[in-house]
Amino acid sequence: MTTPRPRKPPMKETMTLGLVQHACNHEPSDNIKKSIEGVRSAAQQGANLVLLPELHSTRYFCQQELIDNFAYAETIPGPTSDRFSQLAAELDIVIVASIFERRAPGLYHNTAVVFDGKRGLIGKYRKMHIPDDPDYYEKYYFTPGDYESEKQGFQPINTSVGRLGIMVCWDQWFPEAARLMTLAGAELLLYPTAIGWDPQDTDIEKEKQCDAWLTVQRSHAICNGLPVAACNRIGFEPGITTRNTTNTPPPKAPFPKEIPAQKRNTPSGIQFWGSSFIAGPQGEIIALASDKADEIVVAKLDLTHSETVRQTWPFLRDRRIDAYGGLLKRYRD
Amino acid sequence: MTTPRPRKPPMKETMTLGLVQHACNHEPSDNIKKSIEGVRSAAQQGANLVLLPELHSTRYFCQQELIDNFAYAETIPGPTSDRFSQLAAELDIVIVASIFERRAPGLYHNTAVVFDGKRGLIGKYRKMHIPDDPDYYEKYYFTPGDYESEKQGFQPINTSVGRLGIMVCWDQWFPEAARLMTLAGAELLLYPTAIGWDPQDTDIEKEKQCDAWLTVQRSHAICNGLPVAACNRIGFEPGITTRNTTNTPPPKAPFPKEIPAQKRNTPSGIQFWGSSFIAGPQGEIIALASDKADEIVVAKLDLTHSETVRQTWPFLRDRRIDAYGGLLKRYRD
Repeated sequence: MTTPRPRKPPMKETMTLGLVQHACNHEPSDNIKKSIEGVRSAAQQGANLVLLPELHSTRYFCQQELIDNFAYAETIPGPTSDRFSQLAAELDIVIVASIFERRAPGLYHNTAVVFDGKRGLIGKYRKMHIPDDPDYYEKYYFTPGDYESEKQGFQPINTSVGRLGIMVCWDQWFPEAARLMTLAGAELLLYPTAIGWDPQDTDIEKEKQCDAWLTVQRSHAICNGLPVAACNRIGFEPGITTRNTTNTPPPKAPFPKEIPAQKRNTPSGIQFWGSSFIAGPQGEIIALASDKADEIVVAKLDLTHSETVRQTWPFLRDRRIDAYGGLLKRYRD
Repeated sequence: MTTPRPRKPPMKETMTLGLVQHACNHEPSDNIKKSIEGVRSAAQQGANLVLLPELHSTRYFCQQELIDNFAYAETIPGPTSDRFSQLAAELDIVIVASIFERRAPGLYHNTAVVFDGKRGLIGKYRKMHIPDDPDYYEKYYFTPGDYESEKQGFQPINTSVGRLGIMVCWDQWFPEAARLMTLAGAELLLYPTAIGWDPQDTDIEKEKQCDAWLTVQRSHAICNGLPVAACNRIGFEPGITTRNTTNTPPPKAPFPKEIPAQKRNTPSGIQFWGSSFIAGPQGEIIALASDKADEIVVAKLDLTHSETVRQTWPFLRDRRIDAYGGLLKRYRD
């Protein structure tokens, strides 16, 4: 027998979603100040739901595997969590923040945290898919989110503005995750993100990567008939940082053109590509931030429109659940 | 214990893929002639694999539910199948055709059929997801493809040019299907297609729909790290056809603008949007046909490039198969 899940709250017809795209440096207090100012600005522009980038309190420390970086981790609740909880109460809005969570000594997660007005901290989501590739050494830091039963893993969070399907960055490349959130009643999908270019890559390769990132997430909107938004960080962060490092790109390295940056061992830093966006349920771009600067993006969403779109494109009706067993395999060999 | 499946043939490094985008009318012999001419032309341009549109031997008869239309169905092998089998042998190429299959009296499928040079008919795929919405009454005509065990359903077909993940039209909207083909070793995905605009829709709506169609399929390429191609039909086909009907659009109907075409009961026909395309494993468009005319699209594909892309974006490594059980449910309620 299935444990009853919380009833879906009455659907709001519209919500106003704000994204706070900002750069981060080596000083957490600077970053938190920026995040707070961004949330205030979005709220002033009418947002009742505000999404921040992934790990917005720190520089993107996962560019190296350094034991010292575990010092950035915090419990939830904890100081950063309390700060955003107070802010959500003060502004009477929903805030989705992102925290390097210390769950226990030696056990850490990459966690999105939801604060709902005066209710404060109401839920969290621990990143389920963890990347690991040059400049993104996340498997060193983050334990993947739990899955012990249907009640855990890819569960939307009920808030006063709607039922939010919150995931984190690398999750955005997995159609399975978007579908599971949809099937659990998510009304929109939200992804705090930290993704960018290797400055050594060609312009063509850079465009291909950013476009692929947008395309995959717009596709989740289309296949599932709901709005999707991602909030990314922006700006250059050097690969080897010290307290004195300035956030300026290194000079162009003399690598031969034919060796992709991914195959080199010299970290060249990450140029985070911003491009935070809000897409509607047909995958149409409603709002898009630049790839160059801090930016607040605000857009109104009509959540009832999703059902009309799903009636026009009835994909959920036709899924061949009898034939999808192979999705639970690593490979069908 | 799992029944052993045929071993994958040695991977070819490159293949040349041709798409034959063409219009169809009420006269099957005209359409077959067009298909054959298109295949010949693609082969002359170097294609060793040629994909035809969905149900290319007939007009898109699914615009109405008419019992007479079952007369279009043929067995496989049968006359149309034999014709393309001979053509594949003559040109020594692989052809993917699409046939309204009569499997038994009263049992019909929408089937993609593969012919491989002198080996002739080597495999088929019966459309798994069947649409049904105004102007596309396919559930009346087509039984969905079988799934009784892992060996059936979403199985690629080994050919002399590679292991082909062939699906049909509506299947293209389901990320589950693309993933299953990938996990079974498909080296590229191919979709014979018949999709178009309701002439009554606004230009904005039309653009949104065609863009969504492209976006979803490019997303399959990205998420799965392999090339994807679709071959669509082109041209206007009226909603109510007789032997005397010409393929010209009806005059603009006086519907109020605010009622979407999907909600009206007057069939206004379909303007098939062509836009047949070939995308690479990062979702990049390699070749794209127009939305206005018959067109042969030919492009060379380097199949070994997919593995490099998958190493750079290692999505297959990180799937949370422990947490995907909900994908086998209709809804997680």
